[in-house]
Amino acid sequence: MAAPSEHDDAAAPGPAARSGRRLHLNAFLFGTGHHQASWRAPDSAVDRLTDITYYEELAQLAERGLFDAVFFADGHSVGNVAGGPAWSLEPLTTLSAMARATERIGLVCTVSSTFFTPFHAARMLASLDHISGGRAGWNVVTSMWDAEARNHGYTAMPPKEERYERAREFVDVARALWASWDEDAVLADRAGQWGDPEKVHPVDHEGRYFLVDGPLTVPRCPQGEPVLFQAGASGPGKALAGEVAEGIYAVAYDLPAAQEYYRAVKAEVARAGRDPDGVVVMPGLVTYVGRTHEEALEKQAGVDRLLPVEQSLAQLSTFVQQDCSQWDLDAPVPELPPLEEFTGPQGRYGTILRIIEAENPTVRQLLARLAAGGGHCTMVGTPESIADQIQEWFENEGADGFNLMPPVQPDSLQDVVDLVVPELQRRGLFRTEYTATTLRGHLAEA
Amino acid sequence: MAAPSEHDDAAAPGPAARSGRRLHLNAFLFGTGHHQASWRAPDSAVDRLTDITYYEELAQLAERGLFDAVFFADGHSVGNVAGGPAWSLEPLTTLSAMARATERIGLVCTVSSTFFTPFHAARMLASLDHISGGRAGWNVVTSMWDAEARNHGYTAMPPKEERYERAREFVDVARALWASWDEDAVLADRAGQWGDPEKVHPVDHEGRYFLVDGPLTVPRCPQGEPVLFQAGASGPGKALAGEVAEGIYAVAYDLPAAQEYYRAVKAEVARAGRDPDGVVVMPGLVTYVGRTHEEALEKQAGVDRLLPVEQSLAQLSTFVQQDCSQWDLDAPVPELPPLEEFTGPQGRYGTILRIIEAENPTVRQLLARLAAGGGHCTMVGTPESIADQIQEWFENEGADGFNLMPPVQPDSLQDVVDLVVPELQRRGLFRTEYTATTLRGHLAEA
Repeated sequence: MAAPSEHDDAAAPGPAARSGRRLHLNAFLFGTGHHQASWRAPDSAVDRLTDITYYEELAQLAERGLFDAVFFADGHSVGNVAGGPAWSLEPLTTLSAMARATERIGLVCTVSSTFFTPFHAARMLASLDHISGGRAGWNVVTSMWDAEARNHGYTAMPPKEERYERAREFVDVARALWASWDEDAVLADRAGQWGDPEKVHPVDHEGRYFLVDGPLTVPRCPQGEPVLFQAGASGPGKALAGEVAEGIYAVAYDLPAAQEYYRAVKAEVARAGRDPDGVVVMPGLVTYVGRTHEEALEKQAGVDRLLPVEQSLAQLSTFVQQDCSQWDLDAPVPELPPLEEFTGPQGRYGTILRIIEAENPTVRQLLARLAAGGGHCTMVGTPESIADQIQEWFENEGADGFNLMPPVQPDSLQDVVDLVVPELQRRGLFRTEYTATTLRGHLAEA
Repeated sequence: MAAPSEHDDAAAPGPAARSGRRLHLNAFLFGTGHHQASWRAPDSAVDRLTDITYYEELAQLAERGLFDAVFFADGHSVGNVAGGPAWSLEPLTTLSAMARATERIGLVCTVSSTFFTPFHAARMLASLDHISGGRAGWNVVTSMWDAEARNHGYTAMPPKEERYERAREFVDVARALWASWDEDAVLADRAGQWGDPEKVHPVDHEGRYFLVDGPLTVPRCPQGEPVLFQAGASGPGKALAGEVAEGIYAVAYDLPAAQEYYRAVKAEVARAGRDPDGVVVMPGLVTYVGRTHEEALEKQAGVDRLLPVEQSLAQLSTFVQQDCSQWDLDAPVPELPPLEEFTGPQGRYGTILRIIEAENPTVRQLLARLAAGGGHCTMVGTPESIADQIQEWFENEGADGFNLMPPVQPDSLQDVVDLVVPELQRRGLFRTEYTATTLRGHLAEA
């Protein structure tokens, strides 16, 4: 471990200053799309959510767009099924199939450090890395809802501090397991030894949360270890990201919010003695792309119109953790408790506070703002205008790339692949072919 | 639940009496093959054990042979890597990829009820069932080695009784989770509800070992639930098999041993109020097939010759749970404790006692007997002679089918597919094409 930086408060050297820097794109796949009403769209994939070919085709589409990775979030409880699809197939099994339908694109999977044992997580992710030939990524989450905890034997979610302490130990153990086979441990010497016992190491971990002897049952994986992602916006989340993440998924509804987070999390990376330029920060991004601005606005309005208000209020209730069902739609949003007092996921809640502060919207206006992506940045426009905004964020310490959240799948993703990516390529901001074969290779591509 | 049978001791009506009964074949895939020295063979797949195409090709080969299923065992600890490969890729992720490389064959996965939570197991297996279009099977095991327990937070393995009690509750919870979505729960009504809340049920389980609210995050899978397999040979193992298994993997080194187990476990099925004819018993079977008997013997001798004695003694030490390294190779096997006093896996140990009793072998002879499959039945001969033996077991309450344990992969499996399967088909004992699309459909095929 390098010593912590002496200049914690100074922003890391702006990556915009580096020449030839390239943008990174992930495709965050979610049900029929991130817009809550996407499943109601006439051509939605609502009938294909348990059909593996749907996910394979999405991965192939993102690969055609030369994205760094596809990404699956994960959850362990079912919400209100009347209002729309929640989770469907399990992501590790799904990504294993998708790995075989693609050749280059990374495959990032959320795995909860609260609900798995590190041995399970490490072996499944190592296996995915083998199956994909070095394209696995792991989004470390601590999970947060009691309803999820109550499917895995807890009566309620452990407190956040305990979850993050456990997560930190979990990551350490998983990494030790991935390192438990040296690269050259398998000799496959038919006349002698299959493996070299000197090169397969026990882990002998006995910590606060875990007892793991090791070694892993899976020989060293192509990337050595899967690429680590983190998406925490709270203090402990940013600290964990600073210590271990190679890719960071962020929530930022505008450039100032993005810059604030970007600088803070890069400072955390420096504080942990790591190179801030080596960590790729990708805010979530919802896009509506049209050949004209009007066409883009109409795409957005078209899916917004499909959204029942009660359902949006139910989603908002989840985000702010209070019952909003009786709120007056045409009155300003009632005052909410400050961020410090909020015990749920802080990133999204902070965004909601910021929207209220900046726009003083009515409840109805806030609902429209949150309908897709729940407060992530939304860009609506032509390929050129969206490329302008992307470039602005990219060159001004707002983002090293974006975690695309297609409001409607596959249409919104296809618009980005067919219309926005070529514009980014023309500007020299995005790769024109894959130069690496591994996910870590894609992220390192300058 | 039907009332227990009044005639517990009577054997179930002999399935041999049923006309048109068809044999079932599973391919138990294991590393480079079940023979301990298989990896030393010149054309072994020792370099491909982390290569997903190796497993895909094996599944395609077994599918070409019209097998009911491929089967992966699983373990959570690494043995002596010098002596040969142990586990490699994780089976659930591997089978998900194999599902996409095949169309009809079943995919059976061992999942431990001691190391997983039922929610994880249920959702991954349901997901595999979706990905494969209804071809998933679950071999319920309780696991047994302290070295495995110590990778998942236990200081030692829980006692067998506790493991089986947990397993019984685990299966109940998993089944409740699979049933938590009615078949018609997903409405996908774009103008109305996505799911019908009346048809998605909480599980509300609070038992001795598990707290699970449910419902599952995965909508009802094509088979309703994956097909349940069990392989326990001990009292609690047979009882669990009798209560829940639809397929049973057995250990029997000769027909009398097979008949004893077959009758006992079918009686357990009847005792649990289930139809014994609906449960498929498949003893493990190691085959060496040649165009002549001599060629078959030479195949066996060829791989036997590759086996270092020390390694066999180490394996034997594991089977009998004592240090055999100093045993005199050319003396009779020292006396072993009776089955009742043995705390490890009883099926294999019982077989070893039976071999000793029947053959009074020297240590060296016992090692040769155990070199492949560790005491499962071994058949060596021509396609005709092996088909004769298979038919004898099949028609005399020894087996409803076999769990093929190819000593060398893929060669031994290919010999069965190309030479033995056609002979079984000529005799009307085995399907000539798949008539079903699901694993449960294959097993039900008369």
